Amino acid sequence: MTQAGSDIVAQAIESWSGLTATQRFNTFRSLKRDERERLFLGLSAWEQAEILLVMPVHERFTYVRVLPPDDAADLIQEAPEEERAGLLELLDPVARAEVGALLAYAEDDAGGLMNPRFARLRPEMTVDEAISYLRLQGRNMETIYYGYALDSEQRPLGVVSLRDLFTAGGRARIADVMNTRVIAVREDTDQEEVARLFAAEDLTAMPVLDDSGRMRGIVTVDDIVDVVQEEATEDIQKIGGMEALDGPYLETGFWQMVRKRAGWLAALFLGEMLTATAMGHYEEEIAKAVVLALFIPLIISSGGNSGSQASTLIIRAMALTEVRLRDWWRVARREILSGLVLGGVLASIGFLRIVAWQAVGHTYGDHSLQIATTVALSLVGVVLFGTVAGSMLPFILRRAGLDPATASAPFVATMVDVTGLVIYFSVAQVILKGTLL
Amino acid sequence: MTQAGSDIVAQAIESWSGLTATQRFNTFRSLKRDERERLFLGLSAWEQAEILLVMPVHERFTYVRVLPPDDAADLIQEAPEEERAGLLELLDPVARAEVGALLAYAEDDAGGLMNPRFARLRPEMTVDEAISYLRLQGRNMETIYYGYALDSEQRPLGVVSLRDLFTAGGRARIADVMNTRVIAVREDTDQEEVARLFAAEDLTAMPVLDDSGRMRGIVTVDDIVDVVQEEATEDIQKIGGMEALDGPYLETGFWQMVRKRAGWLAALFLGEMLTATAMGHYEEEIAKAVVLALFIPLIISSGGNSGSQASTLIIRAMALTEVRLRDWWRVARREILSGLVLGGVLASIGFLRIVAWQAVGHTYGDHSLQIATTVALSLVGVVLFGTVAGSMLPFILRRAGLDPATASAPFVATMVDVTGLVIYFSVAQVILKGTLL
Repeated sequence: MTQAGSDIVAQAIESWSGLTATQRFNTFRSLKRDERERLFLGLSAWEQAEILLVMPVHERFTYVRVLPPDDAADLIQEAPEEERAGLLELLDPVARAEVGALLAYAEDDAGGLMNPRFARLRPEMTVDEAISYLRLQGRNMETIYYGYALDSEQRPLGVVSLRDLFTAGGRARIADVMNTRVIAVREDTDQEEVARLFAAEDLTAMPVLDDSGRMRGIVTVDDIVDVVQEEATEDIQKIGGMEALDGPYLETGFWQMVRKRAGWLAALFLGEMLTATAMGHYEEEIAKAVVLALFIPLIISSGGNSGSQASTLIIRAMALTEVRLRDWWRVARREILSGLVLGGVLASIGFLRIVAWQAVGHTYGDHSLQIATTVALSLVGVVLFGTVAGSMLPFILRRAGLDPATASAPFVATMVDVTGLVIYFSVAQVILKGTLL
Repeated sequence: MTQAGSDIVAQAIESWSGLTATQRFNTFRSLKRDERERLFLGLSAWEQAEILLVMPVHERFTYVRVLPPDDAADLIQEAPEEERAGLLELLDPVARAEVGALLAYAEDDAGGLMNPRFARLRPEMTVDEAISYLRLQGRNMETIYYGYALDSEQRPLGVVSLRDLFTAGGRARIADVMNTRVIAVREDTDQEEVARLFAAEDLTAMPVLDDSGRMRGIVTVDDIVDVVQEEATEDIQKIGGMEALDGPYLETGFWQMVRKRAGWLAALFLGEMLTATAMGHYEEEIAKAVVLALFIPLIISSGGNSGSQASTLIIRAMALTEVRLRDWWRVARREILSGLVLGGVLASIGFLRIVAWQAVGHTYGDHSLQIATTVALSLVGVVLFGTVAGSMLPFILRRAGLDPATASAPFVATMVDVTGLVIYFSVAQVILKGTLL
């Protein structure tokens, strides 16, 4: 009985991301042959490609050949363009054809996830025949726990689990015991949609069909765990206000990472320049009442924070299909109310703070009550606007066919900053007219 | 052959989240008995609890009893406190004992995920005996695809997959064909850690042991998909600057949601008040050179955006264990360099913008070149600070035993705002001394 992490291979996998390329190679070298293979299988496709490419060419093929076709395709996709043909050459002809076909699919389509080796049954087989077949052919398949009965055109007629076979009579025909409700996806179905179906239907395997309905492969639930992680990572990075990275943070090249961050940062900066323009319009007011400037960061950041909360909530709810396009009005009503309540909370704190400071001697001048009122009213307006804009932006993006996760916290904050300034100075013009302004 | 969504039950599951409680009940009622059962099994634990509690009591037990013990426990956990005992009573005595034991575990521990019904083998059994046993007893188990050989104390000695059994000789002993490297977790292992092990070891099932090493149940990979989704949702909501919700957005009560948002928003607001204090120190400078005020939102938001990028990247990399505590210095070096480059990019854009505006007649006064220099240098400082603070804060939080995801975009932005103002006005005091100030 081994707890995880107590053997040398598990330890190596566990610490892999902290090692330099040289340390990785040395660790790999220090292992016995079968340990190397276990280590290799435990690494991500990216890490497999890395270690493989530092090996001498004649050693590579033993490792590539232990991978099932879908994993081999992933590895080759992670390798630099110029190495891919060479890696493909290492495979035996059958595997090479399979992997080559898989490489034609987009990485994040069902076709890119599937394994072409699945258990094909004929509907007229008996249960005993099917079990014997799985027993004999099982080694070469992604899973022997699901068998698919196909017609002569390779279209699925039904699915049967090994568990069903076990409990059925041995002489029964597959056609009589199979489940004819086969939930399948097409080769070009997006992996996010595939993951959603797995969750909604509580499946552990799903066939992938081509345009003519022929079964081309099978996706299993263990691949879905990776998909879900990957999609969440992409969304999180977008929510953070950048383009999603292609690989792990420490493995991503410095300049590649900087490019993915600089693009968005520069775009946001250009947007944020509108604040300088807006402020320019209020230069006179600021000159007259410098005290107004003091609360600018407080006001605009409150709008940004409430917008960030709202957009993040809705982006995630959309990704989990808890919220759909048609729910926009339900969400809008809810968020208008939230914005008012949240704005009210911050307004009260802000009002009390200014009045209290004034009472203990810090002075905001002769009109601190008017200033407190201006700040409080602006906060209600800004938080309300932030909340509504933050929650509606993901709907607008999705409607336009874009990724709602683009409505990142920084993007919403930038939008809200400009509006926040306009709201603040407009309120000030009304409240402070005749006194400070 | 059915494509997903083409039958009535799949459609109902698909549209479930968009329906009101009444519509759900009516949809449920309109289905045939077996369709109802399929629908029920396809819903989340939260939705199962909801529909169950609107049924007459005498109908409830048929539905509760179709659930395996781990799912029944999840359902009961999602029901209001006062209903739980009643729901538990609906189960038959054996299931009630099992579910009762599961309810004692924290929802997000391995114990809360596991199913206590797994395939127990004896090491001295033959392969044929084991296969017959699985064939006979399979109906009541979470999976028949993995069998565990236990000693007399119920401690696992080895694991064997049905696939291994299929390819082994029928008369071989389990002890000779089983894999003695059993990767297991303890009952109180956090579900995030369980998910990581599944991914690292490419497993489809894992035993759960108690303090004495006795096997108490099994966790399967399909439960892990939900765990991964759930953990990502929690992190995303925290990154958005709020407490994680307990359920879907549209299902969460309005006041509960507002509370989860108001707490953080108020805390950030209190922190952001320091900007008013900081600005107070520079009131004199602003009065002398109002033009300085124009760039305040631009400067502080650039710091916030770069901090948000950095913290989000590191929070996610930590959640995926791509980055560990001991990597802090590698990350710091990388982020110092990123901060300088990104700050340089924004500084150049900002400098050019001010100079260009001046050239086309918009005027920032007689000293626009000095102002452009002040803004550019401040941007380098602020973006550098934002990037480094954003990337290091998750390390500090983890070190302190807190969740790194708390280093949300709004939290980092608030921190950076105050510092950004100090940097900006300090630079201004140096560059504009003798001219504007």
